Order: sequence, then C-alpha cells, then structure tokens
Amino acid sequence: MALLVEKTTSGREYKVKDMSQADFGRLEIELAEVEMPGLMSCRTEFGPSQPFKGARITGSLHMTIQTAVLIETLTALGAEVRWCSCNIFSTQDHAAAATARDSAAVFAWKGETLQEYWWCTERALDWGPGGGPDLIVDDGGDATLLIHEGVKAEEEFAKTGKLPDPASTNNAEFQIVLTIIRDGLKSDPKRYHKMKERLVGVSEETTTGVKRLYQMQANGTLLFPAINVNDSVTKSKFDNLYGCRHSLPDGLMRATDVMIAGKVAVVCGYGDVGKGCAAAMKQAGARVIVTEIDPICALQALMEGLQVLTLEDVVSEADIFVTTTGNKDIIMVDHMKKMKNNAIVCNIGHFDNEIDMQGLESYPGVKRITIKPQTDRWVFPETKTGIIVLAEGRLMNLGCATGHPSFVMSCSFTNQVIAQLELWKEKATGKYEKKVYVLPKHLDEKVAALHLGKLGARLTKLTKDQADYISIPIEGPYKPPHYRY
Amino acid sequence: MALLVEKTTSGREYKVKDMSQADFGRLEIELAEVEMPGLMSCRTEFGPSQPFKGARITGSLHMTIQTAVLIETLTALGAEVRWCSCNIFSTQDHAAAATARDSAAVFAWKGETLQEYWWCTERALDWGPGGGPDLIVDDGGDATLLIHEGVKAEEEFAKTGKLPDPASTNNAEFQIVLTIIRDGLKSDPKRYHKMKERLVGVSEETTTGVKRLYQMQANGTLLFPAINVNDSVTKSKFDNLYGCRHSLPDGLMRATDVMIAGKVAVVCGYGDVGKGCAAAMKQAGARVIVTEIDPICALQALMEGLQVLTLEDVVSEADIFVTTTGNKDIIMVDHMKKMKNNAIVCNIGHFDNEIDMQGLESYPGVKRITIKPQTDRWVFPETKTGIIVLAEGRLMNLGCATGHPSFVMSCSFTNQVIAQLELWKEKATGKYEKKVYVLPKHLDEKVAALHLGKLGARLTKLTKDQADYISIPIEGPYKPPHYRY
Amino acid sequence: MALLVEKTTSGREYKVKDMSQADFGRLEIELAEVEMPGLMSCRTEFGPSQPFKGARITGSLHMTIQTAVLIETLTALGAEVRWCSCNIFSTQDHAAAATARDSAAVFAWKGETLQEYWWCTERALDWGPGGGPDLIVDDGGDATLLIHEGVKAEEEFAKTGKLPDPASTNNAEFQIVLTIIRDGLKSDPKRYHKMKERLVGVSEETTTGVKRLYQMQANGTLLFPAINVNDSVTKSKFDNLYGCRHSLPDGLMRATDVMIAGKVAVVCGYGDVGKGCAAAMKQAGARVIVTEIDPICALQALMEGLQVLTLEDVVSEADIFVTTTGNKDIIMVDHMKKMKNNAIVCNIGHFDNEIDMQGLESYPGVKRITIKPQTDRWVFPETKTGIIVLAEGRLMNLGCATGHPSFVMSCSFTNQVIAQLELWKEKATGKYEKKVYVLPKHLDEKVAALHLGKLGARLTKLTKDQADYISIPIEGPYKPPHYRY
Amino acid sequence: MALLVEKTTSGREYKVKDMSQADFGRLEIELAEVEMPGLMSCRTEFGPSQPFKGARITGSLHMTIQTAVLIETLTALGAEVRWCSCNIFSTQDHAAAATARDSAAVFAWKGETLQEYWWCTERALDWGPGGGPDLIVDDGGDATLLIHEGVKAEEEFAKTGKLPDPASTNNAEFQIVLTIIRDGLKSDPKRYHKMKERLVGVSEETTTGVKRLYQMQANGTLLFPAINVNDSVTKSKFDNLYGCRHSLPDGLMRATDVMIAGKVAVVCGYGDVGKGCAAAMKQAGARVIVTEIDPICALQALMEGLQVLTLEDVVSEADIFVTTTGNKDIIMVDHMKKMKNNAIVCNIGHFDNEIDMQGLESYPGVKRITIKPQTDRWVFPETKTGIIVLAEGRLMNLGCATGHPSFVMSCSFTNQVIAQLELWKEKATGKYEKKVYVLPKHLDEKVAALHLGKLGARLTKLTKDQADYISIPIEGPYKPPHYRY
Repeated sequence: MALLVEKTTSGREYKVKDMSQADFGRLEIELAEVEMPGLMSCRTEFGPSQPFKGARITGSLHMTIQTAVLIETLTALGAEVRWCSCNIFSTQDHAAAATARDSAAVFAWKGETLQEYWWCTERALDWGPGGGPDLIVDDGGDATLLIHEGVKAEEEFAKTGKLPDPASTNNAEFQIVLTIIRDGLKSDPKRYHKMKERLVGVSEETTTGVKRLYQMQANGTLLFPAINVNDSVTKSKFDNLYGCRHSLPDGLMRATDVMIAGKVAVVCGYGDVGKGCAAAMKQAGARVIVTEIDPICALQALMEGLQVLTLEDVVSEADIFVTTTGNKDIIMVDHMKKMKNNAIVCNIGHFDNEIDMQGLESYPGVKRITIKPQTDRWVFPETKTGIIVLAEGRLMNLGCATGHPSFVMSCSFTNQVIAQLELWKEKATGKYEKKVYVLPKHLDEKVAALHLGKLGARLTKLTKDQADYISIPIEGPYKPPHYRY
Repeated sequence: MALLVEKTTSGREYKVKDMSQADFGRLEIELAEVEMPGLMSCRTEFGPSQPFKGARITGSLHMTIQTAVLIETLTALGAEVRWCSCNIFSTQDHAAAATARDSAAVFAWKGETLQEYWWCTERALDWGPGGGPDLIVDDGGDATLLIHEGVKAEEEFAKTGKLPDPASTNNAEFQIVLTIIRDGLKSDPKRYHKMKERLVGVSEETTTGVKRLYQMQANGTLLFPAINVNDSVTKSKFDNLYGCRHSLPDGLMRATDVMIAGKVAVVCGYGDVGKGCAAAMKQAGARVIVTEIDPICALQALMEGLQVLTLEDVVSEADIFVTTTGNKDIIMVDHMKKMKNNAIVCNIGHFDNEIDMQGLESYPGVKRITIKPQTDRWVFPETKTGIIVLAEGRLMNLGCATGHPSFVMSCSFTNQVIAQLELWKEKATGKYEKKVYVLPKHLDEKVAALHLGKLGARLTKLTKDQADYISIPIEGPYKPPHYRY
Repeated sequence: MALLVEKTTSGREYKVKDMSQADFGRLEIELAEVEMPGLMSCRTEFGPSQPFKGARITGSLHMTIQTAVLIETLTALGAEVRWCSCNIFSTQDHAAAATARDSAAVFAWKGETLQEYWWCTERALDWGPGGGPDLIVDDGGDATLLIHEGVKAEEEFAKTGKLPDPASTNNAEFQIVLTIIRDGLKSDPKRYHKMKERLVGVSEETTTGVKRLYQMQANGTLLFPAINVNDSVTKSKFDNLYGCRHSLPDGLMRATDVMIAGKVAVVCGYGDVGKGCAAAMKQAGARVIVTEIDPICALQALMEGLQVLTLEDVVSEADIFVTTTGNKDIIMVDHMKKMKNNAIVCNIGHFDNEIDMQGLESYPGVKRITIKPQTDRWVFPETKTGIIVLAEGRLMNLGCATGHPSFVMSCSFTNQVIAQLELWKEKATGKYEKKVYVLPKHLDEKVAALHLGKLGARLTKLTKDQADYISIPIEGPYKPPHYRY
Repeated sequence: MALLVEKTTSGREYKVKDMSQADFGRLEIELAEVEMPGLMSCRTEFGPSQPFKGARITGSLHMTIQTAVLIETLTALGAEVRWCSCNIFSTQDHAAAATARDSAAVFAWKGETLQEYWWCTERALDWGPGGGPDLIVDDGGDATLLIHEGVKAEEEFAKTGKLPDPASTNNAEFQIVLTIIRDGLKSDPKRYHKMKERLVGVSEETTTGVKRLYQMQANGTLLFPAINVNDSVTKSKFDNLYGCRHSLPDGLMRATDVMIAGKVAVVCGYGDVGKGCAAAMKQAGARVIVTEIDPICALQALMEGLQVLTLEDVVSEADIFVTTTGNKDIIMVDHMKKMKNNAIVCNIGHFDNEIDMQGLESYPGVKRITIKPQTDRWVFPETKTGIIVLAEGRLMNLGCATGHPSFVMSCSFTNQVIAQLELWKEKATGKYEKKVYVLPKHLDEKVAALHLGKLGARLTKLTKDQADYISIPIEGPYKPPHYRY
C-alpha cells in the first residue's frame, strides 16, 4: 500500500479525500454546533481551565460532522487529537477535510479498503517514538483491539521469537491486523507495550465494543481502565433508539427512494436499535414484523402491535429487512435467495457479518449490479430476481446517509467528553483500575439536562418535603441504579 | 365499628358486599383465565406437586377478577389463602364474592372506609392463635407495614409499658393503624411478634411498596426477606406501562365520557406509569404536556414530541390532569382553583396524597357534587367553576374502571407466584436474608415466554455458534443485569 | 303489550325506566353542556328569537345524555318535542328520565324488546288527532320508514280494502311494523296521511338512513323534503371517524375488560367508521387487519400499515372482530364457528344483521351464557369453545358503552339543529322539494368554527389579496364542493 | 440565451445536463418499474393495441425517475413524446439523460434559470411547423398557460398589431413568458393558434393547475378540454397525502441532517399536503403546530392532537416551518426576522411565493450563505442570526430530495395515462367540450386495484345479495360521487 501521510501548513499530519471540501465541512460543522448543546456547554464550562492541557487523544469513531464537533470540543479543552474512522464507509469527506485543516490529525475517507482502514487506525495511534495516546475515544473497539493484539504478539515474540502469522486465521480482516502487527514488530518490538504504558484509559461508545471490554475484564486481559459510555442512559436509550429511528428511513430513502408505506418490514432484533427501527418503519406506514430470541423483548414488540415471527416465516413476503441484533449470521444467503424481487436488505446493528455478505459474494453465478455507491442489486442466477443490499452489509445509516443527527449525537458525545475528563482527572489517583466502569447517574442526568433548553423544556423542582418523602436529594440523582427508563 | 365476619357453608371466613354476585364473578374469572396464560401455566406446571401444601398466604392486593385468578392459582398449588384489598375503591364485588365462596377467605368490598380498610387488613393477617401467615403477597406494603408497626409497638410496650398513641400523629390513616395495634396489644402483646416469627417472607408488587422495603433494609429494620417483584422487567415495564396505557383512558371514559381527542392533557411524571399514560392520551388525540423533575425522563418525553413544562405553566389551559409520580403534593388546591371549568383531575400513580385532597376538602366554601360514585365535581365559591376529581384522588383506574386487564396482570402475578414459590422453597435454607431481592433474569424471561403463545408469537433460536459469538447461553438469560429494555 | 304512558305533573307524557334517575341525568347533562359548544352557541344565537315557536319536533335518535342536550336546545329555541330512541340498547336511562321530567315527551329505555321499540316510535310520532310532527330528527330512518310504510298501507287499504299482512314477511322486525300499521289502520285509516300532510321535512343523521332516503328519491317515493346531515363534513368525517375511534375501545373495555395490546383485530370495512376503529385498535397496540370490497379504501388501509385480507384468511387467528360496513351478512355463523375461543365479535356499523345473529341463535346446540347484559358468550357444541358477542350484534358502542362523547356529538347535533332551522324557516317558500339535500358548505364550516374555541384554537385570516389569489371569499366557504378533507 | 438543442444518434432532440448519467438513470428506472405496478399494468393491458399510435404528447412535469416510467409507458403505448420539467430544481439529471437517450425528447436539468425553464417549455411544445402536440400532460399548468397567453397575444396582435410588452408586468417570471411570446410572434404570428387547433386536450396533475383551469372554464377562456387528474381520489388522497408524508422528512434530512424529534414544527395549511406533512413530523417526534384558515380542517388537526395557532403566535419558538397552502404570502420576511437562529423554512405546497423570497432577497444587509445547493442560510444584519431556506423557496421535496416515491407516483401517473387515453380515444366524438372533467369513479377504483397486488392485499367480494342490499353493482363503483374517503 502506497499511502502517503500529508501535512497541513502548520505541520499537522492527515490523509483525507479532498481538502477542497474543508469550507463546506466548516459550514456544516457550524450548523451542527447549534444542534449540539451538550458539547457547546462543555466548551463554555471547561474551556477556560483547559483540563486536557497536555493530553494526547486518539479517536476511532465515524469521522462525521458531529464527530468534528466532538473533536473540536476536545481541542477546545486543551487536547491534541489524532483521529480515524471506525467504519470504511462512514466518513463524511467534508467533515474530515475541515477537521484536518483546522483542528486535528485526521486519517479517514469514505470508501476505504480494509487495508486502508487499518492503516488509518495505526496512523491515529502513532504519536511518534514517545508512545501512543494518553486517552482513546473508541467506537466498536478497534483501536483498543489493535493495542491488545499488539501487546499479545509482542509478548509472544519476546518469549518465543515467533511473529504473528496472518495465515493462521480465515478472517480476512484479522489477517490484515496481524500483518500490521507483524510488520510493526520488526521495526519496534515494544511499540504496543509503550502504548499500553502511557495509556490512561479508553471510553467506548457501542454495545459491541463494550461487550468486548467486559469479556476482557472477565478474562483478566484488559490492559487499562475503560469507561462504558454506551450504557449511559443518555447514550443507549437515546442514540441507539432515537438515532436509529431517524437514520434508518433516512438511509433507505437516500439509497433507494422506495416508498415505505404499505411495505412489509422485518426488523431482526428488538433491542434499543431494533425498537427505534421498528418505530420508524411503523410510523412511515409499513407493516412491521420483528424477529427476536429474547422473550421479554418479543413481548414488548407484541405490546406495540408488532408481529413476532421467525425470519423463515416471512422471508419470501417481506419487502425490507433490517438487522439490528449485534450478532452474526442473521440473514444468510439462503434467506436472500428466497426473497421477493428487489427486496431491500440492510444492517444497522453491527458489523457486516450480521448479513452473510461472504455467502452472497461467493454464491455461484450471482451478479452484482451497482446502482450507485452503497446500493447494489445482487441477481441470483436461478431466478433472475435480485435483492438490493445497502452499504455492502455495513451500517447503512452511515454508509447510505449521514449517520445520526447532531442533537442525539450531542448526548452521546457529551458522555464521551465527560468520560475522558474523568479518566484524565483521575489518571494519577488509582480510582480507575483495569476494569469497565459506567458514568455515575448524576453525570448521566447532567448530560440530559444540558439538552433540555434547546428544546424549550422546563423542569419541575422538588420541594425539600417531597424529596424527603421519596428519599432522594433535591438535585438528584433521581433514580436508583437499576431503574430502566 | 360493628363489622361481622361471615362464614361459608364450608366454614371459611369472609366479608364481602354481596355474595349473590358470586356467579357473575365466576363467569368473569373464567374469561380472565383465558387471558392469563402465565398463571394457568403455573397451575399446569406446579399444580400436580402441590408445592404450597401447608403454606398460609395472606394477600393485600386489589381484590379484582385478575386477583381472583392469582388467588386460585395459589390455592391450586396447595396454599391456604386469606385476602384483603390494598385500596378502598379497588375491589370488584363480584370477584370478591366468587373468591370468598369458592377459594379463599376474603375481606374486601368497593368503597370501604379507612377504618374498614384496616379492619380487613387485620382480618387477612389473622390466622388464629398460631401466628400469622407464612407468606405475604403485598401491594403498596400495607400488610408489611402493619406487622412492622405492630412489632415496634410491642417492643416499646414490652420495654416501657407504653401503648401507641393515635393522637401522636396528624395523619388520619396512621391514627387508625395505631388504634388497631393498640387495641390488639391489650389482648395479645405478642401478636405481631408471633407473626414475624412465622413469616417466611413477602413479595411486593409496587414501586411505592418497594421503596419502603429498601428504606427498611437501609435502616436495618426489615423483619423478614422480601422479593421485589415490581422490578422484574415483566412487571414494571409491562404492568406499569402497558397496563396504565390501557386503564387510564378506560377510567376517564367510564367516569366522565369525555372526548379525549382535542384536549390538553397534563401528565405529571414520565416514569413507566407516566409513559403509558402519555402514550394513551397522545394516541387518543390529546395534546400532551409532561411535568418532570428528572432531566433524563424529560428528554425522553421531548423525543416523543411531548412538551415538557411545569404545572404552573399550564394549569389554567389544560383539560385533563393525571398524576403518576409516586410522590406527594403534586396538584395542590391552589392549582385546582386556577383550572378551567370541569377540568378533570385524577391520580394513577400512588396514594391519594399526590393530589391535595385534604386541601380541597377543607377549602372554605368549596362544594362537592357527586355525579356518581368516584366522580365528584368540586365547585369553588369564588369562581363558581368546578373541577372533576376522580376516585377521590385515589387510583382512578381501579376506582373508576376495573384496573389493568387480565393479560398484563398475568405477567405481574406470574412473577408473584414465582416469588412466593421461591421464598417457600428456600424457607429453611437461609438463602434469603432480611433483605430485598429481585428475581433472577431467567425467571423474568420465563414469565415473558409464558405469554407469547397466546399472542401467536414465534421466537427465533440462537445457534450454538451465535450464542458463543455474543457469549450468552442458548437458552438465556439473554441480557446483562443492567440492561434497560 | 301492556305498556302504559305516564305523565309528569305538568301533564307531559313519557315512558322511561326509572324517573328517580332524573337528578343523576341532570348532573351529567350539565357536564355535557360544557362539552357541546356548538349546541350551546345555538341557544345563545337563536334562543332569544324563538325560531321554533309553534313547531312540533319528533326525534328518533339514541336517547343519551348528548341527545338530551340536543333536545333541550330544540326546546330552548321554542319547539315542542317528543322523542324515542333508534336502538333498543342505546338509551341511557338517566338521560331519558331527566329529559322526560324537564323538557320533552320521552319514550325510551335501555333494553327494549323490538315490540316495545316500535311502540315507542309510534308514541313519539303521535301528537294527537291534529296529525303528527312538523319536523323529524331521524337516525337510521325508522320514524321516516314508519310514515312511508303507513302511507303506503293506507293507500292500498283505500284502494283495495286490504290490510297489511305481517305474515307476508320473514323479517321479524318488519312483521312488528306491519302489525302496528295494521292495528292503527283500523282505528284511523288516514293517520299517516295526516302526518305526511303536516310534515315539513326530516333531517337524517346516518349513512344507512341517508341511503334509504336517496333510494326513495330515486324511486320517486319520498314523501317530504329531507336534509342529509350525515354528509356534512362536520358529521361524517368527525362523528363517524373520531367518535368511533373513541367509543370502540370504550365499548370493548366496558364489556370485556380485555387487553387490546398484542391482540389481532379484524376491522371489516374501511370507511369513516372503519378508519376510526382501525386507528383506535392500532393505537391501543393491536395488530389490525382490514377487510374491504373497495380498492381505494383498501389502498388507504395499506398506506397506514394495515394488512388487507379477507375474513376467511384470518378468521381462526384473530382475537377481535368489528363490523363497520353498513352492509349485511359480514360475519356469518360459519365464520364464528372457526374462531378462537373467546374471540370477541361486535358491530359498530349498522343493524344487527352485519353479524349473522339469526344464524348464531338458531345454530343447533349452541349455548348462550350471559356474562352481563350485552355481553354474551356463545358456546358451540362441537368444540366447546365460545365466542363473545357484544350488544347482541347491535351497535356495541351504544349497547356496551355510552355512545360517542359529547364534543363530537355536538358537531353532529349542531348540524341537526341547523338543518331543522332551515327546514322550518323555508316551510312555506317551496325552497325544499321532496328531495334529499345537504347543508351548504358555509354552514358546515360554521359548525366547525363553533367548536374551535373550546379547544383553544386560533384561526388564521386570509388577506383580501390572498383571497383573490385563490379566488375565494375571505369569510369562506374555503373549499369547492367536491373537496374531500 | 445561447442554448443549443442537441440530437441523439437517432436524431431525437434533447437538452440535458450530462448524457453520461444515462446508464445510472436506466438502472434506477428499472428499479422504479418494479414499484409502479399501475403503469406497468397499463403497458401490459394497452401496449399490444398501440392506442397512442400517431399521437404527439408534450409533458411539462418534474423530470424524475418516476416520470421516466410514465414517459416510457406513453411511448410503449405508441406515443411520440417531448418533455420538460415544471420546476427549475426538480429534474433528476440521470433520469433526464436516460429518457433522452432512449425514449423521448427531453429538455430539462436540475437548476435551470427561469429563462432556461421557459426555453425548455417552449422546446417541449415545439413539434415543428405542423403545429404543437395532440395532448398535454401538465403539472402546475405552465404548458397550458403558455398556449393560452400565446393565443391571447396573437389575437391582440392580429387585431391591433400590438406586441406583448414584458415591461407591462412586475412579475419577473411573467416578463419572460411575454418575451418568449413576443419573440415568437415575430416569426410566426399563428404559432399558438396552430397549437390550439391541433390540441385534443390536457390532463392536469396539481391543485394549483386545476384551480387555474376551473377559473378559465368559469371565465369562458379555456381553449381545449381538460381532465382534472388531481381530484381523482387515487391522486389527491394518495400523492398529496402519503407522498408528502414520505418526502417532507426526506427533504429535511438530505438538506439539513437535522434531528426532527423534539423540535417544534409549524405546518401552514392542513389540506391533503398539510395532513401528510403534519403526520410525518408528528411521527418523527416533533411537536406540530398547524395554521389554518378553514375551520373544518382546523378541527381535523385538533382531533389529531395538533395545536392550531396563527403563525404570529409561534414564529419565534418553532424550529421548522413548512408551507403547504397553495396560496401566497404565507411566511413573510417579517416573520423570518423573528425566527430562532437556524430555524428551517421550506415550501412543499406550491410556487415559491408561499414564502416571501422576494422580501428576503431584497432585505437590506441580509447575507446569503450557501451551505450546499438548495440549502441556504440567510443571516439578518440586526441579529446576526440566520434562518435556513430550502430549495430557494420552491418545492423542497423535489429540490432537496427526489420527490415522491415511485409507488405513490404510480397511482398519480396511472390516472394521467388513463386520462390521456380517454382524451385521445374521444378526440373525434365531441364527448369532451372545452371544460374541466374528472375521471369517472370506476377508473379511479381501477387505479387503486392495480396497486393492491404489489402490497399483498386481498379484496373481499360482495355477494349479489349484499350488492343489492346496498344498491351498488358487485364490481363497483362502490361509493357515491360525493364520498370523501
């Protein structure tokens, strides 16, 4: 790969698609700022004291307009920042350009190859010989993964002299990871160890990434403290739910212009993402069928008037299929073969393995017709009928539209900023061990509170007497930890 | 009070309004059984082994048709049962009659005075000289409260010879409680101690009752193990939410026949109950305004298109006011004075102190016109305008309608049965200490699973490979404990 | 039949269930007045000039609280009124009592037999020897029918001396009609001719009644002018749609307490009534399936996410069946046999022949178990499973609940008042021939305008320039006659 | 203007943006065909008989993918076609390219100037010396307008020798029209007369265009028969309502990425378009406020829980403003000055004069910042706050998104095809005079029926007995002409 790092006039590194889009990006960033009151409040509250003075932050998170506002909040608080995207299709090139020109070292563009993707991740983690970042903002856990795999390989190498072998795995993407680590090992066999040493902690954004962290914690392999931002109420019950309710129809419309009303939509999974997707499809006039493994979520779907069936029951009748499970192998090529002509298949949950893209690509005689980028019609040889796959099976809201809107991302990202501040503030106190933490409820409530004014809301205040009656402080937190909202 | 206990031909005690309604009650119980698959499954699964053989169960829980199915599930599993209602207006007299005639000792009727109410509670706890019940099914915690206050008074009496003094409190209801305990003390100064000794534990149904239990646990005053059934997902996210979504409009319609469409409805509180109420009002065509203290819940309301304001902001413009907070002093008489003529004021959350009934009743010159039972128009002397108060400020869905429908109560009550079974099975093992417990998630999921078939749902099954991929067992539980649904 | 007409102290005739309920009725009438701004505005606008001075009005229209406000609006404008209900189950006895005591001659009670029903109709039309009413307020057309059939029989009798023969028809109800006419003929062979002579016109309220009128107009048999109130926009697009959206769940809840969420509801017919019913069921959390003959209405249902199938497709899977077609033979006994145990079957559209009650009643071995009035479980001998039929197949919202709420009835009834005023004002001008008319659009718009203030709405006013631009008068009417709203 | 007509290899004229997009257009056309069952059925049913053989059809209608399917249906039925768009921003350039290359003479591109727009219109009407088209497919009535104005000018010129004077009007667009006519007059003073002679008729698509036609009919100036396609139920109650429900959020999202949930949206006008827009905003989680002049529509809005106020009441609080009135001067620059920073202002109803673009553009010191094409931020000098205006005040769903989706356009366009067939079939019979006609109901129902299969619907069939009972033919039409759906 002959990718070259470029430099701004001020000497900051970057690699983006088209620097000439920076002005356009800046205009949209300015619009987004108005919609992101949580982040802007952080700038007002913390900016003057420059709490991140001296901190190096690496982010691996969709390089969108909203993320640009996050990045520039971190820099406004004193941080130095390097950034890559966490998805090959999710970068908005004008956002990347504006950020690269004005604020941070950005390595991201829409439509990276997997090799380019990991090159970008490596660049974002590379702060020079003095080790890596102090803090990581992660989404999906790829930056965290690279360090953990790197450290593991270095240990093995130190012990046995053995280099990681990309041929040891079938997983094409993991082969790339191992290749990167192997090549790095040759030049600096302590690279990831040095990163680990310096690293204060990571804050992670998604269900998938968090799951990996808890597994590492359970296995005792977690190398640094982690804050689980995903399970802040103001993240999982907002971004996942209301974000997807917004972005699923957005992606469908931009990719296919299809009328949703009157169609049968199958939503696989009825967690927060699935709930948002099902609500969006129902409201747009589709008939919605949910598939679920969990009887509680299934019963919730039923209470909303949704039908709960298996994919097999409905595969040949539905028009739109959306995966939201966070699991793999949800829609297989055998399902796809049975679908109606021009059925739409897309994923908004997780990696591209929710949909059996590999099975589809390797199906004998299948023909791929690219309507436009991220919108492909795949025609089966037997039936000559085709299905429409969005974003090559990856997150369709980021691949086909622009991800979640600014307002709801402001909730998520304000959690990120608060988590980063917390990790950095406590870097020397030992408060955080090599474990996974969630933010305390009063901070979660604070994030919500920062977003009310923009929407014209007015909160009621408890009297002392009322607060005593229900045994909570007047100023909150208002709910016990197990409260489900 | 000259209340007389009556006896069935088989010698079982009872006190109900009208035994001639037993046949009618039986017919409705039979209809309800078809709608309560969870309870009926318990009868099928556990009936043959008679696990409650020898167990005495006292229940303090709205004596409705659905509760009759619960009671008869307990007796079908071998228990002996005594029952009272936990609300002076919530009894359905035909349900009480059928149950009293056929299954259990029932002390309950619609429209009890507060003194009658506590007499009933005492009767339900009175199993004769051998002490009280083995198990309590509680809703709101009044049976639990009586025992705790009784024990406290007996201890004081044993120590100092002092009897409880009803005059020591302003709270009219608590005066009655103290009077009952005082009178009991004279005849048996160890009555509540004996109860406490025998008691294996309590399962509690509501947010309010559970809050009391956690406080007692925190204070170290809890006298026996308690299972918090309220916080089973299949209770709080179903009964509270979907139950109220059903029963709020039901109560409004039965009490007032008012058209909800076009009206402005204020929902005080946006917890599970408030969410159900707001959804019901919105769907019926009202414009909904929410009041909240908690910024997270407020932001949820906004995301659903609801306005969030303070009561003061809207008190003179709205048509319907519903309290769902579980707190007190939400709608005060000063608010009521400012309302539009024939504004409807009701409570579906908690005790009658959510609405300032005391302030209203004692307002100088106020005139009460009873339209029909549980529907009163209160006219203010200054303006000659009136407001309509439902169920005298108590739970309007139980006072003006028939409470929650069978299907959702089947979820709640299946949790109760499972909790009771658990307490009884472990009575000698020491598994449960004097603490508050929630049911394990796999039982919660089981409750949901028992209700899917009735609604025609078909669950998807994980493959081994998928289960491993997300690190959960194929058969569940499917979610981590902190999952919010 | 030994029915006796009673008299108030002031000498007005009546026959109601229980005069002691008059006070209760009065209280609810007063509440309703606040919710019926259109009628109250008519009192204010027209009361002083007493336009109905000297007019005799007979009404055949559900004798509910709302109708009482209509009647008392007519009397407040100077009319004398006699009234019967147009449905054997729809009378609210307290409304009948209060009206009978205070305002008009009422012949109506809940649960009339068919014979009693027609006796009441005859009483309401009987203004003594001077002929019948000047005006008729009709709902379903039974008063109009009786006069038309009476005139026909008198003509036949005058020509041939032949009396009508009840045995000439299989229709049980029509046998009663013929018997009444036959018996009347004997005492006064010109009775209905005298009625016809005097009668200025009728205003008719329902789709079914209007259909009959247009048929008579087409056949040339219509005996007097008729105003079709049903097709005022403020009637058919409000009462039919929003009224049923309110009263279908109300009736279901009062009759069965069944949880609607999660159920499968089949709505037969997707006209205005069906649209209201389907919306209500969907909003309450049911999954809704529509049956339709009209492809346009079917396509509308699909656009709202509803499934469109035939009854046969879904008869064994659904939980709730609602007929709204205005046609007959929609749900036959053969359908009912195939339904799930305790499936609910009800009619909100039209006469009881939408549901094959006759087939059900005569099914060999079928067993009827009356749970409570208007709620019957019918058990089939083969399967021992039962279905629940509401209101004996008649309008369930009136039989099981209290009909439509005051506010929407105020729209319908204000149209009635305006239509009656128009007929009476033009009685001598010949403006109205023996045809069916609709109200002019500016009156329709006026009805709507009278209802806006109560809901806090503020209209925008056109400028002269804007009005010219779209070629309409500033003060309306705002739409062309074919506009569909 | 130096616009040059180009020619395909087959000699057909065109002028489009970029012929290299033809393949992309063809792919999307093929997708759209699957979603347009009405049009495809027309090809199947009528294609073989080539009913349009010899017919010249000119269309003035948004040159989108869906329109391409319409055009190719017309050509599949034998017609020759020339086409222009009816809106300067609505052309999809790939659709124009594919159609121009493969099927018809197309003169259209996204972002025409007004002068280019009328040049295109003139090209589409120019069939050479033998006169104009035989038939016109019109949307908004601009092609019809040009002919009428042309004929008027020719008559004046013939009578007085006076040429039309562009300076005689202030309206910039009308100046262009007059200029074109004037220039044409010089070369051929009978051009529009020849067009008029040849023309069989026009079918018109929109409320606005239809209004013009009825005015001309009323004035006696209509020069040829017209079929009002807009008032087919399957057009106005589908395209206007469900089309806008789909395309309003689509346009908002593509233009601004703004989160709709939580926002306050003002919808000006609550006709079919307004109803669709309000529903979309409500469902997406906005709080919706409606402005209306018509009390009936206002009352409908209230029944759906929407607030009805004047623009002045809410102008400074709302976030999104949408005009749907079909009138002018709805949102004036004085309103815009009072709006919140970054309030979004857009029009989905009619011409760009619904929004006072002229006032905005000429506001002293106002600054226009183009974020991207069709998305402009206008900053007021006094406050430095800006508003975001979409599509320069023109139809935002066409300017910022891709218009209505294929399925609903298939309903509208099938009406167009049927209307064109009818006009052409009856061209010599005199059936159609110089008046405005609507399609008969059975054709309207047929259009709906053609769209049911795609959505999996199954219609119920009347029995003979049922059909007789309600006096309609078994095969329809099912409703009287005044029925409102």
